[in-house]
Amino acid sequence: MGCVPTPHFDSAFRQQLETLFRWRRDVRRFRPDPVSPATLDALFAIATSAPSVGLSQPWRFVTVADAARRAAIRANFAGCNADALAQTGHRAAAYAALKLAGLDEAPVHFAVFADPAPEQGHGLGRLTMPETTAYSAVMAVHTLWLAARAIGLGLGWVSILDPRTLAGTLDVPAAWRFVGYFCLGTPAEPADAPELERAGWEQRRDTIVLRR
Amino acid sequence: MGCVPTPHFDSAFRQQLETLFRWRRDVRRFRPDPVSPATLDALFAIATSAPSVGLSQPWRFVTVADAARRAAIRANFAGCNADALAQTGHRAAAYAALKLAGLDEAPVHFAVFADPAPEQGHGLGRLTMPETTAYSAVMAVHTLWLAARAIGLGLGWVSILDPRTLAGTLDVPAAWRFVGYFCLGTPAEPADAPELERAGWEQRRDTIVLRR
Repeated sequence: MGCVPTPHFDSAFRQQLETLFRWRRDVRRFRPDPVSPATLDALFAIATSAPSVGLSQPWRFVTVADAARRAAIRANFAGCNADALAQTGHRAAAYAALKLAGLDEAPVHFAVFADPAPEQGHGLGRLTMPETTAYSAVMAVHTLWLAARAIGLGLGWVSILDPRTLAGTLDVPAAWRFVGYFCLGTPAEPADAPELERAGWEQRRDTIVLRR
Repeated sequence: MGCVPTPHFDSAFRQQLETLFRWRRDVRRFRPDPVSPATLDALFAIATSAPSVGLSQPWRFVTVADAARRAAIRANFAGCNADALAQTGHRAAAYAALKLAGLDEAPVHFAVFADPAPEQGHGLGRLTMPETTAYSAVMAVHTLWLAARAIGLGLGWVSILDPRTLAGTLDVPAAWRFVGYFCLGTPAEPADAPELERAGWEQRRDTIVLRR
């Protein structure tokens, strides 16, 4: 410790990093090609380098291979989505169709939860903001997302699910907080712009910055 | 659109990316060297490439340069931390001391909030999980964090703050949800292991993965 020189990242790397950020996509159409267990394990290992509050690593990954559980999750999505449609109309219908495609086609599914009271980390840093355990899990997902894209795999985030029903389907500890459900696989098509941009629904804008 | 070739990321890049993930640190000791406004703007611009629910980009950055506001935030931290100490003991005291150093020394401070009901994105994807707007803001922070590290800057996340008091100090819309407060600058020392590991408090462990 302390004797390893700080790495330098040159401009070529930084440019590629920006490209990676820009090309990381929320992928909804997958080829059926399997993802090897070794690749998946490597991605879960890379996720451990994400930041976490008090080094508590509160993220919990749950891979879902069982067909009955996948069907239950698809039904959960369809039910929640019917409610969403009633409220937000035709854009939501097309959005849901995209996400459903991902659930049907992606070779790998996994859910991510946050343990709200992990023993690891001794509770440091999360007293006033217990949601920092969920935030840590989100950064583990984002780390995995970027690493996956760098090896040509795409990830899609499904958030239209009832968390309580999902926890039951996956038989996880009741205290765990659901963060998201993810589809992983080889993208069916190159995507140089987000689906929502390509569909003309929304476009990326400048960051809003206030000065105080 | 559709005619840009998908970029390929070679193994040299992927190795450097892993190094970046591993060397991204929660930095608490900074040199006083200023960060130029252009550099800061570039980092905010890179943050726009983060994932966001329904492409809503709900993150709101608030830079804090005013000395009186910084003093109020320091007092907010000290107050919350006194409560934390009463509950978690000597480890928390030393942890807080590290964070205070960051607040005193870092040339750039900014807070990040999430707009819980952004007009952008048409509400897609967040009906069952409104917290996805905060999760999007977390990924914008993580994107900026990695990009900063790639140009030799360090970021420290301060979460021991009372969100309501902070929102008042910064005079932001009442509906915005506080995500985190950040110190940015040149790290005072190279850090090849997290402070908590070096202090012997906690160490990184394998990701917990359940199979269903």
